[in-house]
Amino acid sequence: MSHTVEILSVGTELLLGSIANTDAQMLSQGLSELGLNVYWHTVVGDNPGRAREAVALAKSRADIIITTGGLGPTCDDLTKNVLAEAFGKELVFHEPSAQRIRSYFERTKRPMPESNMQQAMLPEGCTVLENDWGTAPGCAFEADGVHVIMLPGPPSECRPMFHYRAKPYLQSLSEGVIASHTLKLFGIGESSMEEQLRQQMNEMSNPTLAPYAKEGECELRVTAKADNDEEAQKLLKPTVEQIKTLFGNKVYGVDVKSLEQVVQTLLEEKGMTIGVAESITGGLLAKRLTDLPGVSKVFKGGIVSYTNEVKQAVLGVPEELLNRCGAVSAPVAQAMAEGARRVLGVDIALSATGVAGPDKDDRGNEVGTAFVAIATPEGSYVRELHLGNRPMRERLRTQTAHHAFDLARRYLSGLSYEH
Amino acid sequence: MSHTVEILSVGTELLLGSIANTDAQMLSQGLSELGLNVYWHTVVGDNPGRAREAVALAKSRADIIITTGGLGPTCDDLTKNVLAEAFGKELVFHEPSAQRIRSYFERTKRPMPESNMQQAMLPEGCTVLENDWGTAPGCAFEADGVHVIMLPGPPSECRPMFHYRAKPYLQSLSEGVIASHTLKLFGIGESSMEEQLRQQMNEMSNPTLAPYAKEGECELRVTAKADNDEEAQKLLKPTVEQIKTLFGNKVYGVDVKSLEQVVQTLLEEKGMTIGVAESITGGLLAKRLTDLPGVSKVFKGGIVSYTNEVKQAVLGVPEELLNRCGAVSAPVAQAMAEGARRVLGVDIALSATGVAGPDKDDRGNEVGTAFVAIATPEGSYVRELHLGNRPMRERLRTQTAHHAFDLARRYLSGLSYEH
Repeated sequence: MSHTVEILSVGTELLLGSIANTDAQMLSQGLSELGLNVYWHTVVGDNPGRAREAVALAKSRADIIITTGGLGPTCDDLTKNVLAEAFGKELVFHEPSAQRIRSYFERTKRPMPESNMQQAMLPEGCTVLENDWGTAPGCAFEADGVHVIMLPGPPSECRPMFHYRAKPYLQSLSEGVIASHTLKLFGIGESSMEEQLRQQMNEMSNPTLAPYAKEGECELRVTAKADNDEEAQKLLKPTVEQIKTLFGNKVYGVDVKSLEQVVQTLLEEKGMTIGVAESITGGLLAKRLTDLPGVSKVFKGGIVSYTNEVKQAVLGVPEELLNRCGAVSAPVAQAMAEGARRVLGVDIALSATGVAGPDKDDRGNEVGTAFVAIATPEGSYVRELHLGNRPMRERLRTQTAHHAFDLARRYLSGLSYEH
Repeated sequence: MSHTVEILSVGTELLLGSIANTDAQMLSQGLSELGLNVYWHTVVGDNPGRAREAVALAKSRADIIITTGGLGPTCDDLTKNVLAEAFGKELVFHEPSAQRIRSYFERTKRPMPESNMQQAMLPEGCTVLENDWGTAPGCAFEADGVHVIMLPGPPSECRPMFHYRAKPYLQSLSEGVIASHTLKLFGIGESSMEEQLRQQMNEMSNPTLAPYAKEGECELRVTAKADNDEEAQKLLKPTVEQIKTLFGNKVYGVDVKSLEQVVQTLLEEKGMTIGVAESITGGLLAKRLTDLPGVSKVFKGGIVSYTNEVKQAVLGVPEELLNRCGAVSAPVAQAMAEGARRVLGVDIALSATGVAGPDKDDRGNEVGTAFVAIATPEGSYVRELHLGNRPMRERLRTQTAHHAFDLARRYLSGLSYEH
């Protein structure tokens, strides 16, 4: 039997537009990977009447209901109350959860508001999903032929709670096995990728191929269903190989998170270190690298040189060069990378300089013009970018960072810098 | 009469989690500002049966239905077909829209797939919402006492279509005026904030008070309805003042985006410059500052010193200090800030050092231990943080950055550093 899922999010902040429903996105992605069909997302506010109606509807049409939000003391634990009522369950005090909540506050050295103890009230007979990332425990139960899973709303809690608590519970409900691999591509547009794959995609049924575009990168997810993982992998392999052949070294990895993660892995393999010098990206290169756990083995540091003075004083970019070519130029990008390599004492250094807007720079460089460079023991290379002046500041910076990491991954993989 | 709105999004990509429903967020924000009550978000896939059910439900409970997505040729114009059917309307060919679609393709120099002509089929008697940002026109009509507005799904089209086309249509439906102010707080937990406000919140009806927690910060939105803006502002003022008094300098701004934005404004007012030295935040301080347009007037640069060598070589932190106290210590945080102030030639410098995990550091400092410091012309100050070892890496870094910016905003506002 194929399960149908409704994701029910409770929170007035969603209806006011204070936040986007990223929980629903994260859950949908994870549930699809488990082979479960998400058919509905519903959002209601912290309103018992509408929450009750939404739960009744979900109960009538889905056989798995996953709720997010409404578990905190501030909304009177709306979700738990409404779900327990809909499925005829009492809320009972769960001492181990109370203990965990108390020690959470002790650890973070904050006084515990009495209202937090409400969070230890849980539906009778449920499976408690321990929350190691916040105070509100989640829970799961089956009743009236429906599986109910309640997760906390804050994305920093919802994500790990899904991954480490709800997923194992759900995996047991899924029949057969779904396996997938995700190929990551950089340097190709989504429509051009899709055009090259369209016929193939239409003809395939198992495995299936799903393309996504994400902030200037592309993803291709190949998914197969089979009786067991070995069979599924056998189905996946030829398609993965075929795509790799088709797109060549635009494919930068399979089942990897990001360009920077590939760079980290390659640096570790080679025992090399990296540093960065940033102007347009303003800390984004360093930030993305230090988002990676364990990166301190290979990343030594970075310089954010937002002014010419800092470019000169800290990175040693010659004043003459800045005057002659301007801060947004290939020679300055190269000098920044080489300066960072020297100052930080690293094997390879990346740099980025460009115009993020809102206005042209004083040399008349258009918004979207940028240079990324790499300095290595074997010399330096600069890539010139014209990213168009329509994308927003954030997106220009993101794309520029992609290109910088792409240089590093190409150097470390022994590939041509040309993309 | 107070209108209730349902936002109905059609798109399998939302149910697969390929994208977040940012359209619903953007619309919710805009609709709330218009004083319209968004009570439901619903998402269904490109499935006529479930779309029909969702429309029937929306029609029964909302008096404004706004749809996003499902207007393109690839989904057979699902949304238009289903909505027209539900309200007993025919789709008729709209020549001006056809003309616009043809010229859109001419302008972008692409051949027009024949299927795009479907997009010129619109419900009889509707108000056509011209799409200057893509091919699919939107439309609006009133039938059976319900207002229906259909907008295209891609956020780059949905946003301007709402702002320039749907809003003028909706404004005529809204009676009176809604005004709101958002107070931002740092240094207080959501539950403790709410406990102090609970009674008041329950007693208030106009203005109303809505609290939110966001990545370690808190927000309080005060909203009032009145006949005109002046009246609304009169209602808001005493409440805003009352909250400011209640929470003192934990309130860091009204209608501001972020701590760093407040810091930017204060620096501009005082004609001062800022720089940063980062270990645990690894570029996040610089990145958040450079996210702000126009920040180059006050931000000169940053050093990401992820190793002791870089702390010594670039920031001039004494080796003896690093050996004696360890990299995660108050003296090193102070030396980093002072080093950055000197090296970058700025008026004030912020620093952050700490343990983001996954493991304790070599001195046995727990994950979540951090020090943020500020160096100013009048001297330095260090704040010690114990953020708990459970939050994820990302959240620890975000919170540490908040604290660093809080030091700057307190210094620049002449407040005590104690929070």
